[in-house]
Amino acid sequence: MMNSISVLGSTGSIGRQSLAAAAHLGIRVEAMTTNHNITLLEEQARRFRPSFVAAYDESAARLLKISLADTDIAVGSGEAGLCEAVSVACEAVVTAVSGSIGLRPTLEAITQKKRICLANKETLVCAGSLVLREAKAYGAEIVPVDSEHSAIFQCLEGRRSELARILLTGSGGPFRGKTRDETANVTPEEAVRHPNWRMGAKISVDSATMMNKGLEFIEAMHLFGVTPDDIQVVVHPQSVVHSMVELTDGTVLAQMAVPDMGLPIQYALTWPDRSPSPYERLDWTRMKDLTFEAPDLEKTPCLGLAMDCARKGGTAPAVMSAANEAAVGLFLTHQLGYNAIYDSVAEAVGRISFVEDPSLADIIEADRAARGYVLTHY
Amino acid sequence: MMNSISVLGSTGSIGRQSLAAAAHLGIRVEAMTTNHNITLLEEQARRFRPSFVAAYDESAARLLKISLADTDIAVGSGEAGLCEAVSVACEAVVTAVSGSIGLRPTLEAITQKKRICLANKETLVCAGSLVLREAKAYGAEIVPVDSEHSAIFQCLEGRRSELARILLTGSGGPFRGKTRDETANVTPEEAVRHPNWRMGAKISVDSATMMNKGLEFIEAMHLFGVTPDDIQVVVHPQSVVHSMVELTDGTVLAQMAVPDMGLPIQYALTWPDRSPSPYERLDWTRMKDLTFEAPDLEKTPCLGLAMDCARKGGTAPAVMSAANEAAVGLFLTHQLGYNAIYDSVAEAVGRISFVEDPSLADIIEADRAARGYVLTHY
Repeated sequence: MMNSISVLGSTGSIGRQSLAAAAHLGIRVEAMTTNHNITLLEEQARRFRPSFVAAYDESAARLLKISLADTDIAVGSGEAGLCEAVSVACEAVVTAVSGSIGLRPTLEAITQKKRICLANKETLVCAGSLVLREAKAYGAEIVPVDSEHSAIFQCLEGRRSELARILLTGSGGPFRGKTRDETANVTPEEAVRHPNWRMGAKISVDSATMMNKGLEFIEAMHLFGVTPDDIQVVVHPQSVVHSMVELTDGTVLAQMAVPDMGLPIQYALTWPDRSPSPYERLDWTRMKDLTFEAPDLEKTPCLGLAMDCARKGGTAPAVMSAANEAAVGLFLTHQLGYNAIYDSVAEAVGRISFVEDPSLADIIEADRAARGYVLTHY
Repeated sequence: MMNSISVLGSTGSIGRQSLAAAAHLGIRVEAMTTNHNITLLEEQARRFRPSFVAAYDESAARLLKISLADTDIAVGSGEAGLCEAVSVACEAVVTAVSGSIGLRPTLEAITQKKRICLANKETLVCAGSLVLREAKAYGAEIVPVDSEHSAIFQCLEGRRSELARILLTGSGGPFRGKTRDETANVTPEEAVRHPNWRMGAKISVDSATMMNKGLEFIEAMHLFGVTPDDIQVVVHPQSVVHSMVELTDGTVLAQMAVPDMGLPIQYALTWPDRSPSPYERLDWTRMKDLTFEAPDLEKTPCLGLAMDCARKGGTAPAVMSAANEAAVGLFLTHQLGYNAIYDSVAEAVGRISFVEDPSLADIIEADRAARGYVLTHY
């Protein structure tokens, strides 16, 4: 059980639930950050009394500093602020920021040997090889917070050497079974309405396009040290099973729970222990019709694209992820159609120059170029 | 991985599969026994070349001795023969005999510190407290072979302290949903036709009445050191999930596999390792409609009776199990109706005198009295 944490992205969905879990578990919150939601961050800061807070947005940070002037809480800003937030006296860092801005602070926390409670999948998607190499070198633990990776992590505890195949499950999103023609006029409001999980806007859109499952596919490769052929995506619309592993003898272990992110967050904080939790229990007296099927890659081309980028490696996943972030941003602000999310990302992957064994600088450049491509061409 | 084993009941369904697993894994079979199927035992003996064989039936043993006169294989008989079979130079004993005759040989193997690959559930049902106490005292490992208990055992590995509840699944058998009126005229041929598993006749009938789930309920209490309130029986007609555990935070871990007893047998032999296996894999591209529901104790009163006996403790489970063995024997030979299995067992439980903290002698007497009661009154 961790005694003290820093929460990057405390005003988002995962961040808020991380604070709730910390409160429930009696864990001290030493630092917290936001992008620009300083109203909520101030409220959180007054409640949790961290020693440090930061806003990524510089002007928001200036306002926040004024708001908290009556406290002894230090205020930072920008990427430097996020890096400072992981450098306070804490045992673990919850990386709950959205997008590739999580990369540098995560690397900073790793060099400080802190446990990474990883809720920012873009970090591993863009720079998985680099991050895992650093974590190994510094002996920093990476414990996944994503429900799927937490499930796999739990199923594999003590039996990593027995793994034959990861069965990565996903609900298929709100438009499961719909053709590209049928999704052409999907609005942001429709796309963020996930059938089983309540999540932030970006990840909800990614769930609808199944790009989220693609990002998780790449994340799982890095986290569990496997190849693309070792992972099978399984569509499971009921979201009761959060993922499974097939072991060498054909045995399958599955992890299940109510769809509440509080649970994997708590587990990442208490691991290797497990604590009682306030969440609802699954009701086995009436659990009907759990189904499992193969994904239809024609209807969800983003997943196929992500699997291709996973096989290609190098800067391909970073380009794909950054282009997707930009495209989803445009979609959410009604500047891009739903199907054009895939089109623009696929185009960026085809056009941005490829580096096979990238440095951190190469990854950051690929990220920048991919965003630029989508924003200027769409 | 075990290097050498003795198989009690090698001519039964589990016994034959244990020999196949031993052959596949390259494990030496040092001894094997049968009740009276000496034709098959001779064939097995000539193939596996154990140093010792035994037939429980005395006259069958005499014939077997003549058949194997040209070999150097020693031949024993009766309960003494079974006890001798566990005393050969072997690391593990697969107890695949049916009924309470497995009790003494199992206790003998425990005193010799051998791993018990437990496929004889009556041993724990009748004398669970005694057997577990002895196993602890001698440091003998008990690894379950029953698919449900193997599933629970696998889900709990490394996390015994995290257990909140065992979710013991069962298919509900071939007459699931049928009322007592509708099962009145069930024939032995109908009762042994299990929808998912191929098994011996006695256990198939027990599956139909759900007495098998009741016996497993009591077995699980002893194996995992829990109370009746810690176990929930869940009807799962598809037999894909073999059982589950709910952990302290509400997380559920499930073990799944194709319904082939070869798998849990192999695991009991290889544990704590896991080996590749020749069994089919579950196909997640088309797994439809897994359902879970509460058992209907009015339609399957044997399960309710077993749960009552589990709560009562003492000699109650031994009386129930022995009466059930006798009743199922009568049913299989067309001397008792299907519904009368429950009636006779319930009556025996009510009539045979109860001992709260029984010795081995008390248990053997309870067993004898219960059989006698059913055979004389029905």
